[in-house]
Amino acid sequence: VSASDRNSFLSRLAEIVGARNVVVNAADMEPFLVDWRKRYRGKALAIVQPATTQEVASVVRACHAAEVSVVPQGGNTGMCGGAIPNDAIPSIVLSLSRMKRIRDVDPLNDTITVDAGCLLAQIQQVAAGVDRLFPMSLGSEGSCQIGGNVATNAGGTAVLRYGTMRDLVLGIEAVLPSGEIWNGLTRLRKDNTGYDLRHLLVGSEGTLGVITGVVLKLFPRPKSSLTSLIAVPSIEAALALLTKLRADCGERITMFEVMSLNEFDLVLAGQPDLPRPLGGDSPWYVFLELTDPLATANLNEALETSLAAAFEDGIVTDAVTATSLTQAENIWRIRHGVTEANMRAGISVSHDTAVPVSSVPDFVNRVDDEISRRFPDVSVYYVGHLGDGNIHVVAIFPRDDYADPDHFAATLAEVNAVVDEIATSLGGSISAEHGIGQSNRRRLAAFKEPLALDFMRSLKAMLDPTNIMNPGKVI
Amino acid sequence: VSASDRNSFLSRLAEIVGARNVVVNAADMEPFLVDWRKRYRGKALAIVQPATTQEVASVVRACHAAEVSVVPQGGNTGMCGGAIPNDAIPSIVLSLSRMKRIRDVDPLNDTITVDAGCLLAQIQQVAAGVDRLFPMSLGSEGSCQIGGNVATNAGGTAVLRYGTMRDLVLGIEAVLPSGEIWNGLTRLRKDNTGYDLRHLLVGSEGTLGVITGVVLKLFPRPKSSLTSLIAVPSIEAALALLTKLRADCGERITMFEVMSLNEFDLVLAGQPDLPRPLGGDSPWYVFLELTDPLATANLNEALETSLAAAFEDGIVTDAVTATSLTQAENIWRIRHGVTEANMRAGISVSHDTAVPVSSVPDFVNRVDDEISRRFPDVSVYYVGHLGDGNIHVVAIFPRDDYADPDHFAATLAEVNAVVDEIATSLGGSISAEHGIGQSNRRRLAAFKEPLALDFMRSLKAMLDPTNIMNPGKVI
Repeated sequence: VSASDRNSFLSRLAEIVGARNVVVNAADMEPFLVDWRKRYRGKALAIVQPATTQEVASVVRACHAAEVSVVPQGGNTGMCGGAIPNDAIPSIVLSLSRMKRIRDVDPLNDTITVDAGCLLAQIQQVAAGVDRLFPMSLGSEGSCQIGGNVATNAGGTAVLRYGTMRDLVLGIEAVLPSGEIWNGLTRLRKDNTGYDLRHLLVGSEGTLGVITGVVLKLFPRPKSSLTSLIAVPSIEAALALLTKLRADCGERITMFEVMSLNEFDLVLAGQPDLPRPLGGDSPWYVFLELTDPLATANLNEALETSLAAAFEDGIVTDAVTATSLTQAENIWRIRHGVTEANMRAGISVSHDTAVPVSSVPDFVNRVDDEISRRFPDVSVYYVGHLGDGNIHVVAIFPRDDYADPDHFAATLAEVNAVVDEIATSLGGSISAEHGIGQSNRRRLAAFKEPLALDFMRSLKAMLDPTNIMNPGKVI
Repeated sequence: VSASDRNSFLSRLAEIVGARNVVVNAADMEPFLVDWRKRYRGKALAIVQPATTQEVASVVRACHAAEVSVVPQGGNTGMCGGAIPNDAIPSIVLSLSRMKRIRDVDPLNDTITVDAGCLLAQIQQVAAGVDRLFPMSLGSEGSCQIGGNVATNAGGTAVLRYGTMRDLVLGIEAVLPSGEIWNGLTRLRKDNTGYDLRHLLVGSEGTLGVITGVVLKLFPRPKSSLTSLIAVPSIEAALALLTKLRADCGERITMFEVMSLNEFDLVLAGQPDLPRPLGGDSPWYVFLELTDPLATANLNEALETSLAAAFEDGIVTDAVTATSLTQAENIWRIRHGVTEANMRAGISVSHDTAVPVSSVPDFVNRVDDEISRRFPDVSVYYVGHLGDGNIHVVAIFPRDDYADPDHFAATLAEVNAVVDEIATSLGGSISAEHGIGQSNRRRLAAFKEPLALDFMRSLKAMLDPTNIMNPGKVI
């Protein structure tokens, strides 16, 4: 891009969004050009911060005219570099951060309509203010934006009960690559009038358009809840317990997370102030949350009845139910302490695999066998959302042995291949909730069916023939 | 089509599926060429009944080569003529009726994998056999096929709790218009690896491909249930009651149906053996079902507490809870007697409108005002799924006044326009659950956003450039 073209382009952007909302200063651009884990870094002509859907549309059209790519960015909390530009291409980062309006709250329809730049936590709070629950729950909820959550089909810890983002979105407003505004902000629960574009935009990671607004489902607020930590003798027992509790308690189960003993120990070793809620060692632990909108629901009684039978069946060996908010928080602190503990333990790589729930034990056992046989110095830990079949295999490489980056990269590629191949052979997914972005494109090409890849390419070419929307991502 | 081309085409089909599965005899073809309500009638070269996905693919390729259209047909229970050929085009009807295999049942993963031709009732039974629930519930469940349910995104009476078909499908296998087999039979609950074709096929009514197999979600089986008939003074009160019960009882509410007094009377007048469950007249009635997987759930107590408060607030005037299965069945017989009662009362036309749940009272009041003012001899009745915002406005035209078909057609068009315009002005849909098919194409073109129609046409052209899949339907 010549200097004069560049300046005229930037002037055009300034006309649209105001000069102060076209950031070109290197220091101010910095936080938008590197991801939060500092694994991806890109370049951009500017960070552009529109305030309205109309401004987004005008910016996209200006980029079209100037042949500049558009990289939509929400809270920049992604795991796969999807919101960071690729170096090769003249791009802008289109930040939705100024679009934070709550457009409508309709408790009788159980919906909320919001700008894409609203923080997830902000939406949770507004919902709570009208005695409703917006159930999506993520570690990054204080900084991630709802538009990014939708564009990446975010998961989190409440998927078992409430589904992924895809299940929580009723309507979407988006600016298509053509610069046209798609008004799909429906608040309807039923609408059978033709093909569904909404579900193409969910999970498309900004490659098919810029999401500018969404209608989300709200739910009754839980008025009873219970947290329990349960020791189980094996991953098979954890699965049997899940099956039993689902049959007994149904949708009261909002979280059913599992953790291997070595991960459990790793977290507690690094947080000496955190009490160990259960004595003794158990090969696996289950983190359980039950909730109910009924204030008088006797969750304790329901759980105790189920657990008593589970003890007799030998699928549970010990359990503690929190009797105070502090106890409950301490249990969940163990679950949330995983990322930090792994970083302390060595060079950690977390996989994001999904397999059918019934295949989780097979998956875990085969990964265990294969990694310990082929890479004896690599330790493997497990944590995940058993109810979704989404298990994070955490491979930790000792820093001393893997100081050489080439040695690390080569071994990592082999470890990744082991995990991906076992997952795929079980009908699994190489990316359950984190998406594709930059980091998983090659793995996607290797593991996705050719017909599916063809379809994705055709659809991308149809909606974005000049490939200006987030190029180099997903496909 | 020349006779020799026709014969060589039919021979090719016979090679693929066997001669006995290419039906050309007029009498045998008849039930496939007219819809169950006898409103649509079409012609076809043959009814073709493949037994496997491979055979479906071969049939589609043979049709490609011969330039013959493919009209997929399941149980032929649709409301909009979507599975009946258009006269103008040389077509075959591709019946999935021979594809009835249950491919896999996985209670630990809560999934069932089935051929597209399986009956809905068959799937419900297999699920019950492994102590699970497949929750889709429709009047036609004994004859409709699951492939058709998916292709039309079926609704029914349990949507409030379990969602529409779209929400119940994890994976789809389909033969695309190219004759390629799309293997999307995933049993995963989470998979963020690219754009989602599944949701394009759901609700596409056979215009983007032939669905040959599906993976469906299963749920815990209810072990407690309760049916109640509740008298409410107005549609506003019905909405207030829904809101209160959702807050108190949450997902225990599986059905929340409403009916106007005139419809209630109409049903009971035609079935003198059916006891009137509540004395006196109430402007509106609510049909409520609560269920719970917990065998010891005290649903009665929960409902009584809520209803006591609702009485005090004046939103409920009377209620009866069934104390026996017979009582419960008698209550639901009133709800299920609507179609028959309407047919007896005159020339009945049922609309399939959805609006935001919060807008239902506004919708009903405006339709009432407008129709009674402009068409005083047309009676309007209401029945519907309030929890989904899906109200069926039933307009009944006296047979004597509307014996002239032209007079009827002209008045009907005006009544339709009134209902559609009020719905659209409230952000509603002209087809909540019945789809588009042949009958609603013109209304779709009038009420859908031009950008959405453009997108639909582009997508159709991309996947089906020669327009052989169910032409003349939807778009």
